[in-house]
Amino acid sequence: MSGTPSFAAVDWGTSTFRVWLLDAAGDVLAERRSDEGLRTAAERGFARVLETHLEALGADPALPAVVCGMAGSRQGWQEARYLDVPTRLDAIAGNAVRIDGIDRPVHILPGLAQRDRQTADVMRGEETQLLGAMTREDDGTGDVLYCMPGTHSKWVRLRDGTVTGFSTFMTGEVYALMVRESILAQTLGDAMDVDADAPAFAKAVLAAHDEPALLMRFFFALRGSSLLFGEEATVARARLSGYLIGAELAGSLPAERDGAAIRLLASGGLGALYKRALDTLGVTHTSVDADEAVRAGLARAAAAIHPAVTEGAHS
Amino acid sequence: MSGTPSFAAVDWGTSTFRVWLLDAAGDVLAERRSDEGLRTAAERGFARVLETHLEALGADPALPAVVCGMAGSRQGWQEARYLDVPTRLDAIAGNAVRIDGIDRPVHILPGLAQRDRQTADVMRGEETQLLGAMTREDDGTGDVLYCMPGTHSKWVRLRDGTVTGFSTFMTGEVYALMVRESILAQTLGDAMDVDADAPAFAKAVLAAHDEPALLMRFFFALRGSSLLFGEEATVARARLSGYLIGAELAGSLPAERDGAAIRLLASGGLGALYKRALDTLGVTHTSVDADEAVRAGLARAAAAIHPAVTEGAHS
Repeated sequence: MSGTPSFAAVDWGTSTFRVWLLDAAGDVLAERRSDEGLRTAAERGFARVLETHLEALGADPALPAVVCGMAGSRQGWQEARYLDVPTRLDAIAGNAVRIDGIDRPVHILPGLAQRDRQTADVMRGEETQLLGAMTREDDGTGDVLYCMPGTHSKWVRLRDGTVTGFSTFMTGEVYALMVRESILAQTLGDAMDVDADAPAFAKAVLAAHDEPALLMRFFFALRGSSLLFGEEATVARARLSGYLIGAELAGSLPAERDGAAIRLLASGGLGALYKRALDTLGVTHTSVDADEAVRAGLARAAAAIHPAVTEGAHS
Repeated sequence: MSGTPSFAAVDWGTSTFRVWLLDAAGDVLAERRSDEGLRTAAERGFARVLETHLEALGADPALPAVVCGMAGSRQGWQEARYLDVPTRLDAIAGNAVRIDGIDRPVHILPGLAQRDRQTADVMRGEETQLLGAMTREDDGTGDVLYCMPGTHSKWVRLRDGTVTGFSTFMTGEVYALMVRESILAQTLGDAMDVDADAPAFAKAVLAAHDEPALLMRFFFALRGSSLLFGEEATVARARLSGYLIGAELAGSLPAERDGAAIRLLASGGLGALYKRALDTLGVTHTSVDADEAVRAGLARAAAAIHPAVTEGAHS
């Protein structure tokens, strides 16, 4: 490890744990990843999991850590209560919760809640990605609709640094359940991956965007195509993914866009699929890398929580 | 058992087995049900399962049996190849397949296939219910759109005795996967039942019918309502069911109706939910009991296959 770490940045989700040592400028000095997400860590002890990884990275026992994600949920390490929208995004640092009963200064950032009976919704972790994306792109000026693909895809409206509302689609989880647990499992094959360049993907995006009410019918048609035409599993997966993403875009773009710029906040294969889907529909958009964004968000929060150790982080 | 059985009627699905002894008029003399569906029967042997139940009912070894459902699939007892739509519904009896290698005369009825690349679809068992419903109601005259709720809900257009097309929605299976396997499992509770009279059900039907593109969002909102407002599992299940059925109706009614009369072919709790959903949307419809319909369909097929033993079945 070259350079001096200013703090540890931790993204602690339901099923994954990631930690980076960052210097005062927010650059990565070292990193570790594991599958010790919320459930595993709850058994082993959150402090022990964190300390084991920090020790392996050679971090000083006094190095501060800033954490985002499900570790701050009621079932997590220590609850960091949701901030209600509308809220300024940079308020998450000021509402971080310091972990009790340990020597190392560890802060957990709060998630956001939409406390409305009709559109009740929550996020934990995405708010920190958004803070980072906003910091890197335009520092929150303007009117942007963020698309954040995932197990639970988020669409977030950010106006001049304030989150005005958001909505979550179960797209990724339903895809995985269809592949693993449904009658379509055999049709879809053992793999989970989808080729964003498959013509069947783009065609399915258009079909479901045009007729989202047929989503449950499109699903079963995959079985019909397999039984009657011997369609291959890779094509079936491309279609399934395209139907789900096409319907998600039909539900999120018109209602929430309203003049906002579209920004895709994603990484890897899922990012490629959503980019292809947006292109297929002719939706102009920019992209931000989600991995970089979460580190930038944690760095910005750390700078606010520990101004002394991270001064210069935004120089 | 009073009266003399003319034949055994068997509805053999993926997960259930049902057999009735019917007299020449199609009336039920005796019945048995078990969970020896396709998968279980494939292990134990189809002939053995059928003979065990018929013996328990005291049926003569020469009594003919007529079977519908997944037993006729490629993974079943013996394949009864699909009839392609459009097809006259009463053609299924003429295309029944006699089981080889056993003494008892057993015939399996074929399913229907829609051999179209865009809307590939299949059914096995529902065609026999339809034949029975048509026989009981109007003998196929007129233009009817049948709604057949289930794990895989079918919408079938029947014009003057000819099935012109159909579509399958994965509504019931997705409902079950959400309750049992998804992140919503805790929110939805251990039970599966839904109260058709719950105001939350009707409200969800309307919401999803109006905005079917939001189906995946409506799902996740159940989690938000549970976390933020402590909403109960019974309400969450009513909403989940309402969203799925509302979206199904949005996808099936306008495209397929086109002047056809709507007929709900269902039984029990699922029939009550769809009836309430149709009423909520102001859709005029009639109802036929699915259990009676499948027996009537098997009786009609038996009369065609074995005219001698069932003569008078339609007197």
